[in-house]
Amino acid sequence: MTEIKTMEFKDDFLYLIDQRKLPVSYEIFQCKTYRDVDFAIKDMVVRGAPAIGAAAAYGVVLAAKEFLHEDRDVFFSELDKAMNILNRARPTAVNLMWAIRRMRNAVEKHKDLPLDKLYQRIKEEADRIYEEDINTNKSIGKHGNAIIPQKATILTHCNAGALATAGYGTALGVIREAFYSGKDIMVYADETRPRCQGGRLTAWELKMEGIPVRLIADSVAATLIRDGKIDVILVGADRIALNGDTANKIGTFMLSVVAKAYNVPFYVVAPVSTIDFDIKSGEEIVIEERDSMELTHIENIRIAPEGIEVYNPAFDVTPNENITGIITEKGIIKPPYIENIPKLKEA
Amino acid sequence: MTEIKTMEFKDDFLYLIDQRKLPVSYEIFQCKTYRDVDFAIKDMVVRGAPAIGAAAAYGVVLAAKEFLHEDRDVFFSELDKAMNILNRARPTAVNLMWAIRRMRNAVEKHKDLPLDKLYQRIKEEADRIYEEDINTNKSIGKHGNAIIPQKATILTHCNAGALATAGYGTALGVIREAFYSGKDIMVYADETRPRCQGGRLTAWELKMEGIPVRLIADSVAATLIRDGKIDVILVGADRIALNGDTANKIGTFMLSVVAKAYNVPFYVVAPVSTIDFDIKSGEEIVIEERDSMELTHIENIRIAPEGIEVYNPAFDVTPNENITGIITEKGIIKPPYIENIPKLKEA
Repeated sequence: MTEIKTMEFKDDFLYLIDQRKLPVSYEIFQCKTYRDVDFAIKDMVVRGAPAIGAAAAYGVVLAAKEFLHEDRDVFFSELDKAMNILNRARPTAVNLMWAIRRMRNAVEKHKDLPLDKLYQRIKEEADRIYEEDINTNKSIGKHGNAIIPQKATILTHCNAGALATAGYGTALGVIREAFYSGKDIMVYADETRPRCQGGRLTAWELKMEGIPVRLIADSVAATLIRDGKIDVILVGADRIALNGDTANKIGTFMLSVVAKAYNVPFYVVAPVSTIDFDIKSGEEIVIEERDSMELTHIENIRIAPEGIEVYNPAFDVTPNENITGIITEKGIIKPPYIENIPKLKEA
Repeated sequence: MTEIKTMEFKDDFLYLIDQRKLPVSYEIFQCKTYRDVDFAIKDMVVRGAPAIGAAAAYGVVLAAKEFLHEDRDVFFSELDKAMNILNRARPTAVNLMWAIRRMRNAVEKHKDLPLDKLYQRIKEEADRIYEEDINTNKSIGKHGNAIIPQKATILTHCNAGALATAGYGTALGVIREAFYSGKDIMVYADETRPRCQGGRLTAWELKMEGIPVRLIADSVAATLIRDGKIDVILVGADRIALNGDTANKIGTFMLSVVAKAYNVPFYVVAPVSTIDFDIKSGEEIVIEERDSMELTHIENIRIAPEGIEVYNPAFDVTPNENITGIITEKGIIKPPYIENIPKLKEA
């Protein structure tokens, strides 16, 4: 098994696989400061809600390191500023806010320690977020494997893989678990326009690991679903509301409508940290719009007329009634979500 | 109004807008022989079912010209060979077979004429196919305009425009008619992966003409449809079966499922020549699979890992129950299609 190291914190720097360069070249992006991390999140060097959360946590560590030899007042005010900046790096992924909140709590809890000791606590909290995410994904994989038939063709969208998390992946974590437990697995990967994370990342990640994968244009999925060629659909999540409504990469909602029309199981796969217990439904989720260049250009090649108007939302919201279940590290949540999701918070 | 001349037969050559080069550059592709036309159809210099039909008809003219000074036996056998080759240039568009059949009938009808006179008859038949197509599209536009509200946001897929026909377009012909009749029209154009005919051609064609257009990734359409932002969906067709099942560019079926789920009118727009009266349902339609490079590369840039397996069907089949109506030059055909489509043949 090839292990894909999405991020690594080493010798006081954060190293990220530069996901903008895949699958053509495998390059490492070095973050020396929290500003580098902010840039890396904004520019999608690192992407995927859990990966963004873990990277941002290490961003806080880099900020703490940078201001360690300043006065305590300056240290805390600069650290606070860094956390505010990182918190806003992207608007949709709730894990980002969740990770920053954990870092903030760690700072608060140890605020009376000498700064070098405080730095150690901050670093430990980031390491915990990182390690917990991998362990969480392995638990998700085990729970999810229960719904995968012995021989299964699985459709996935975007990249909810090792590259989208600290490691192992959510939707792809379930696929990994099924594959390594000896099941006969074939994966259809949606290309996922406009950024092509399916073609660039999921196809790369699965191929690296020898898991059978076939790439399709997003619009091909509907025919495969209708023709009974897909046994189960697994997608990640960027934010889940209390009622189960799920924001995920643009195109997820479309798949869910077709899956429902043709009775194919449609599962969201995500850690509990993706649930936003503060919002009642998907209507409250802010959908990020990204640059029109994502649609009009591939690298430097223009594929749409100059000056064309573009509408380019990065995510869509899948309503709870289209979701068969939500696979988490605490088990598979089934409808009615409005009753079963709040229990996760209590637990 | 800017007129887009998709093809022009002049001084014994066929000139095509090179649609592979749009929207970055506007280049004319010259066909000197029927082999050039065969190449142009195969390589998608010209595409769109009615445009392929008209171009192939001119391909027959070029073949007739080429062998005009041979013995009659050689002339007829070479012409027959050319028609067979052109007939197979692409498998899904029924208009291609229909146009070649018309050319074959013209040859047959005038086969006893001196060859130079026969050539004239062949040329006239191709001109008729070309001109009839434009007139047909204008009639389609008039019929279709009846279902377009005074203020309408229209979603279209791929390019069923002037570029897909001899001129004026089918789905875009209806949009042109609505726009020039003074209606307040806004068009969302699906990008249409993998060849991006929406971004490259539809966006270019509408923008050239000043018709408001906004480009979206294919998967964005579902959210627009659900949110009530689309009044009507207009798509072209490559082949329509007797029961109304319609083969069209990959992604059409997906749109139809979402349209049905959210009660948005979904119209197929096509000339009667697109109907294949010989097939009872969509199950009999051969779906062309195209090169995996369409998905793995944009021009020379690789966007998927080397050696990745790809499934790349060019079309899908939309079942008749998802189609609100079929807009033709003889009026709008409504369900039950199995009763109403055969009447078109009798008429």
